[in-house]
Amino acid sequence: MKNIRAEIVTIGDEILYGQITDTNSQWISAELSQIGFKTIRKSSVGDEKEEIRQILREAESRADVILITGGLGPTKDDITKNILAEYFDSKLVINEIALHMVTEFFKSRGRELTEVNRLQAAIPDKCELVRNDMGTAPGMWFEKEGKVFVSMPGVPYEMKGMMSKYVLPKLKSFFKAPNIYHRNIRTIGIGESMLADMIAPWEDALPSHMKLAYLPGIGQVKLRITAIGDDPAKLAEETEQQVIKLQAMASKYIYGFEDDEIEKVVGELLLKQGKTISVAESCTGGFISHMLTRVSGSSRYFQGGIVPYQNKLKIEHAGVHETSIAENGAVSEPVVKDLAEGIRKKFGTDIGISCSGIAGPAGATPEKPVGTVWIAYSDSEKTITRKLQLGGSRDIIIQMTGYSILNMLRLQLLKIS
Amino acid sequence: MKNIRAEIVTIGDEILYGQITDTNSQWISAELSQIGFKTIRKSSVGDEKEEIRQILREAESRADVILITGGLGPTKDDITKNILAEYFDSKLVINEIALHMVTEFFKSRGRELTEVNRLQAAIPDKCELVRNDMGTAPGMWFEKEGKVFVSMPGVPYEMKGMMSKYVLPKLKSFFKAPNIYHRNIRTIGIGESMLADMIAPWEDALPSHMKLAYLPGIGQVKLRITAIGDDPAKLAEETEQQVIKLQAMASKYIYGFEDDEIEKVVGELLLKQGKTISVAESCTGGFISHMLTRVSGSSRYFQGGIVPYQNKLKIEHAGVHETSIAENGAVSEPVVKDLAEGIRKKFGTDIGISCSGIAGPAGATPEKPVGTVWIAYSDSEKTITRKLQLGGSRDIIIQMTGYSILNMLRLQLLKIS
Repeated sequence: MKNIRAEIVTIGDEILYGQITDTNSQWISAELSQIGFKTIRKSSVGDEKEEIRQILREAESRADVILITGGLGPTKDDITKNILAEYFDSKLVINEIALHMVTEFFKSRGRELTEVNRLQAAIPDKCELVRNDMGTAPGMWFEKEGKVFVSMPGVPYEMKGMMSKYVLPKLKSFFKAPNIYHRNIRTIGIGESMLADMIAPWEDALPSHMKLAYLPGIGQVKLRITAIGDDPAKLAEETEQQVIKLQAMASKYIYGFEDDEIEKVVGELLLKQGKTISVAESCTGGFISHMLTRVSGSSRYFQGGIVPYQNKLKIEHAGVHETSIAENGAVSEPVVKDLAEGIRKKFGTDIGISCSGIAGPAGATPEKPVGTVWIAYSDSEKTITRKLQLGGSRDIIIQMTGYSILNMLRLQLLKIS
Repeated sequence: MKNIRAEIVTIGDEILYGQITDTNSQWISAELSQIGFKTIRKSSVGDEKEEIRQILREAESRADVILITGGLGPTKDDITKNILAEYFDSKLVINEIALHMVTEFFKSRGRELTEVNRLQAAIPDKCELVRNDMGTAPGMWFEKEGKVFVSMPGVPYEMKGMMSKYVLPKLKSFFKAPNIYHRNIRTIGIGESMLADMIAPWEDALPSHMKLAYLPGIGQVKLRITAIGDDPAKLAEETEQQVIKLQAMASKYIYGFEDDEIEKVVGELLLKQGKTISVAESCTGGFISHMLTRVSGSSRYFQGGIVPYQNKLKIEHAGVHETSIAENGAVSEPVVKDLAEGIRKKFGTDIGISCSGIAGPAGATPEKPVGTVWIAYSDSEKTITRKLQLGGSRDIIIQMTGYSILNMLRLQLLKIS
């Protein structure tokens, strides 16, 4: 099967001059790859007529689909629509559906439609309207000798809404794209190369119509299986069978699928087991509590946390024995043990977790270099501890500690050791 | 003066397929604009020979400088170097300086140089070596008929190190770039349009060789003045005088310059005034403590924090009176007042700050919609409170609350009301 070749063109001086990050083109190409389209080039050009004309010509000569974002706002800088009209030898006419939508949009916000806004409803007469459910700039779908051009607004949530709901389904049917089935498997607590070694026999035995990609992030590695074929039900079934095989090999490290976040996964485990949790964190300075409470509804299991940055507060408010610090220093096993047990009892929760470490760049000693971190988990039956030796910046060390302790919590909740 | 035209080319399938965000090209174009170069196009192509050759030809036809990142690793996917050698009709030879650097790099990590690594020191004989102080892939500087091509690794910190130290100074001198003076002024606590109205008389009176840009972020607006001229000392002096005028108009909102972060600025104020601080935060779930402790050395003023998510813990551990909650609910002025005063006394600090609110999406009531947040500041002389009504997602509400309370703290430390 021939790959459909796509190009992405982002228009706007603000991207070109580095004032904003272009997140649109990454999102679009990831979505395209999900439906089997191959992005062959991404380009950004400024709000300049000749540049835009030129990139349209170039893209048309290379690709089957050209996806354009930006340059559709109501201000005078945004000239994309006029250039597209000219490029397709077309003239701008008010589109009644677009006009109705713009009018409703303003009405719902109690604002009056200005002439400038009314002109937003004008689109080239040779294109098809693509609805914008999130804003006022209409999308435009052009066809030319079997090729498709789609122009969308640059505001990310408007563009994403338009792509997901209208453009991607239309592209799939226009190009009669093959069926593709994706599965994202999220792992934690193991590095990319160790994971690759561990699952090599499984990976090598994957059928030829399935591909595996490794997508490493901070403290995590995501695996993505992509299967291509004719029968969607069969593809799904085959892929799920492979996932079951993979789980048998690496169950300890697989914590979720698709968009699962570790904080959401441990939250669901706590909820299901009816357990409550509290946190006593030193070197992470509030980040672990922040992770847990990023999840809406976390108040059902997260009772509270303490950040006893100073040793005095560790002793007075977080249950650390004076001798634990005096004999071992604040970054030590006895201190994180005291912290986890102390916070659990003080806050009256089923589980207490804790950490103490040197996030750097200051504060290191020869015995305890930057990145030395102790973490602990405590419940009514036991307290377990672990020493981490992390690398990277202060930020990375804080984040890695957060992921490590949430993984420790996950393994305990699942009774995996 | 003629603008130097630059193009940025990023190479790599992982960018093209949306697996990683391209942050390099944004950073590069922002740096180029600082030295007065104009980025006219950004392109991303995959690890494919013909695509790379084509983009080199195109970019050469349009731009004066072509900056290329990616495709220089030791693996077989990374083919940029060979294509560059061919493009400049050159052959790869081991560069002695590069070889020495690669060897030292591996020696310092206790690893042996493999043949694959040794080949990294081979560069086209018609280019000049650009040193990589952070990694093993050398940079390459080519000149052709007055145009410059620079090839750099795709790893962001290697590329940034190389650009800042070697490439940008060399580009400035090669193209005899005009003098440009930049000043970034950071504001907080005021929206973009209100700020624009407030400083309009000043902005309108700026001399024609100075430009002002508004760069809005979450809870903040950065202003950037760019001055272009011949005499660097005069440019600096003129710009600083404008900054003084601006400060007189908007002093309440200006918290810093250049890369200053609000958490660093309040940290320095606390340090200078010899004051310590503690935090009692409910809806932000640890984020305020995390912000303060992101700063290395924050243990000199940050004593600790508490996240009393449940009402019971607010009463038992954070100094909230039972009647405050019973009569007003947890999201109320009396509760944040109790929290700020309570944590200050319990943790024995000069200052206590607190918040309680509804971060959403769940938890709203008709009287207290999502985004209703109370914040408080307390010291030995007084306690002040403020109600915020914020919009956006849970994440945004948490962040906005953090910025608002650090700004409240800043204004109190500076005795600005």
